[in-house]
Amino acid sequence: MSRLGQEKSRQALSFVPQGGLWLFVTREGSDPAVKLVFDAGVSGEAAFMLHPGRGRLALVANYDRGHVERLGVFDEIRHYDRSFAEGFTAWLRELGPETVYLNYSERDVLCDGISHGHFLRTCRLVEEAVPGARVETSEPFLRAVRGRKTAEELARIRRAVEGSVELYERLRPQLRAGMSEREVQDLMKQIAAELGFGVHLGDYGGPLVCINRVGLAHRAPGDDRLEPGDLLILDHALECQGYHSDLARTLYVPREGETRPPDDALRAFASAKQAIEAAFAAMRPGVKGFEVDRAAREVHLANGYPEISHATGHQIGRHVHDGGTILGPRWERYGDAPYGELEEGNVFTIEPTILMSPQPSMLVEENVVVTATGAEWLSRRQTELWLAGR
Amino acid sequence: MSRLGQEKSRQALSFVPQGGLWLFVTREGSDPAVKLVFDAGVSGEAAFMLHPGRGRLALVANYDRGHVERLGVFDEIRHYDRSFAEGFTAWLRELGPETVYLNYSERDVLCDGISHGHFLRTCRLVEEAVPGARVETSEPFLRAVRGRKTAEELARIRRAVEGSVELYERLRPQLRAGMSEREVQDLMKQIAAELGFGVHLGDYGGPLVCINRVGLAHRAPGDDRLEPGDLLILDHALECQGYHSDLARTLYVPREGETRPPDDALRAFASAKQAIEAAFAAMRPGVKGFEVDRAAREVHLANGYPEISHATGHQIGRHVHDGGTILGPRWERYGDAPYGELEEGNVFTIEPTILMSPQPSMLVEENVVVTATGAEWLSRRQTELWLAGR
Repeated sequence: MSRLGQEKSRQALSFVPQGGLWLFVTREGSDPAVKLVFDAGVSGEAAFMLHPGRGRLALVANYDRGHVERLGVFDEIRHYDRSFAEGFTAWLRELGPETVYLNYSERDVLCDGISHGHFLRTCRLVEEAVPGARVETSEPFLRAVRGRKTAEELARIRRAVEGSVELYERLRPQLRAGMSEREVQDLMKQIAAELGFGVHLGDYGGPLVCINRVGLAHRAPGDDRLEPGDLLILDHALECQGYHSDLARTLYVPREGETRPPDDALRAFASAKQAIEAAFAAMRPGVKGFEVDRAAREVHLANGYPEISHATGHQIGRHVHDGGTILGPRWERYGDAPYGELEEGNVFTIEPTILMSPQPSMLVEENVVVTATGAEWLSRRQTELWLAGR
Repeated sequence: MSRLGQEKSRQALSFVPQGGLWLFVTREGSDPAVKLVFDAGVSGEAAFMLHPGRGRLALVANYDRGHVERLGVFDEIRHYDRSFAEGFTAWLRELGPETVYLNYSERDVLCDGISHGHFLRTCRLVEEAVPGARVETSEPFLRAVRGRKTAEELARIRRAVEGSVELYERLRPQLRAGMSEREVQDLMKQIAAELGFGVHLGDYGGPLVCINRVGLAHRAPGDDRLEPGDLLILDHALECQGYHSDLARTLYVPREGETRPPDDALRAFASAKQAIEAAFAAMRPGVKGFEVDRAAREVHLANGYPEISHATGHQIGRHVHDGGTILGPRWERYGDAPYGELEEGNVFTIEPTILMSPQPSMLVEENVVVTATGAEWLSRRQTELWLAGR
């Protein structure tokens, strides 16, 4: 039984208007929305359908049937042996929808789960079964379902975030000059394993570990070693039952006799903290993503730091970059995502980075959930620039 | 430098006619053809282009640039910061293609790497840059490129197949009554690790391990234990630098005092061996997939066994089920794949299964490559029904 699949499929069904059918087609697990909405993983060609009158329906290959039944998510399950197309068109004829919603989107990768050839095949079968039915994008539904976390989703994200906070707590006293970026990454992975969490591997095999002197970027950790006077930037995501945290921290490696970081680093940290608080204060349902971004962006500019070169924050959930509304500027590369409105239950990162070479760069990233009237911190915050080894 | 990327991209370029442009667009690594053809992995939005006059071209995000340059695959690389669309349309205008080929296919999942929303966006940009240009499917090119293995691809597959043969050699003497399916799977994974190969995890966490008495199917191994008189069916894939083997073997667990398997099991093994050889004998360039399938299928039927319930064989390569022409019957669920013709350099499995309950089921799976005049065994064959523990 999947409580998660029951919650999310019920939530998704509530979006489908009378006369409509929200159709999820997948081959070899191709559409990530199937996992999101039904908590189901199937390997064969399959169709999952949400229908206002008939509920949640599944047509799967014979060998996927047992698994799908055990989820307890569907009001009706059918299976096929040699021909998916026959079973599918027969069922469509019974349902007779006027509008079929499919998962495609020009800009939101996670709402774009149907490949083009599969779209053509599906339209052909729909036209054969229900001549004249309209095909439309499910994007507005799917974005909302991905963004509005249910109780079970929020519980999993909270556990992942708590794991990340604990990971940094355990890591701090073990960091010291002489360690290489790679050694720090290995240590973070080891602590995550001790805590019982999966580490998101991303493109670089795990947590980002950047000595500011070597360069802050999305890159793999190298063999450069921490020296006194270095700023060290750490960023990682943990996974709890398919849901993620995403938390970054910055530390200073003290020189002989130093008991606090130098003033330029403290000022950069203060600006990052202030920018995070400005974004947080701007957050509530109905506010647009770019408005929250602007609040943070202006803090760094007013304090004399370079403009943030990316978005101030993104959603997290099934994916570390969970799509939908972004807390970002209105640049072409973000499409319409910054224009979206915040909704209760959205979970965001806030990470208004200062990127300086030479140092001080500063990356502090917190996780928050949007509430009915504002926002709530999910992470225990970094409120001062940490000293490595303490 | 990637020798593989150089070989494959050169091969792919040779398919593009004058006036044509083969365009690979990808976001967050969405199209598997990018890895296949260019040996490149990028996380940002990117366009890779094959142009008869200008060669192999790449437009990537600033943060993906270093990695793509190091491949040594491209004749020209450009990058973008804030807007992919600007750089992309500008370059398209320079190239001025009459026909743009995109990676979509109604039936072949691995040739269907462009999602529908991404297809719409790409067509919009193409129309903006080169009004009137036609958009067509790249399926015929891409199937051929996926199927025709280059020297480097074949070398990697050979190493994976040799690893699989060696794995079974090491495993056989360690198998005995009392072991559970799960323990056998663990042992296979351990041997693979000792041999230095990655195990393909598939849907069930690794090798298939089925006691015939419990049931032969695509399923996870369970806690049932081997008993004397059991047939044990094993199937696994190893990975060598991104390329795969796929080899299955059947063993008999002797009863007290038995020195050879019982006659019914020997007869089933002989039929499997005969069916494999019939398929092998039918293989050469130009023969259709369903013709090879039929050769094997008829052997089991003539010997009084049930009809094979799936395809006799599939291609292997980057994926364990590598798409394209299949050695399968003309059933709807296989689409047009059985109608494809074998080509030199195609690598296939041959696995004409006997599925019986109660036993004897029989699954022997070999790997072969199509040559100019016939086919060549890649795997050292299983020529007799093995006894567990010997």
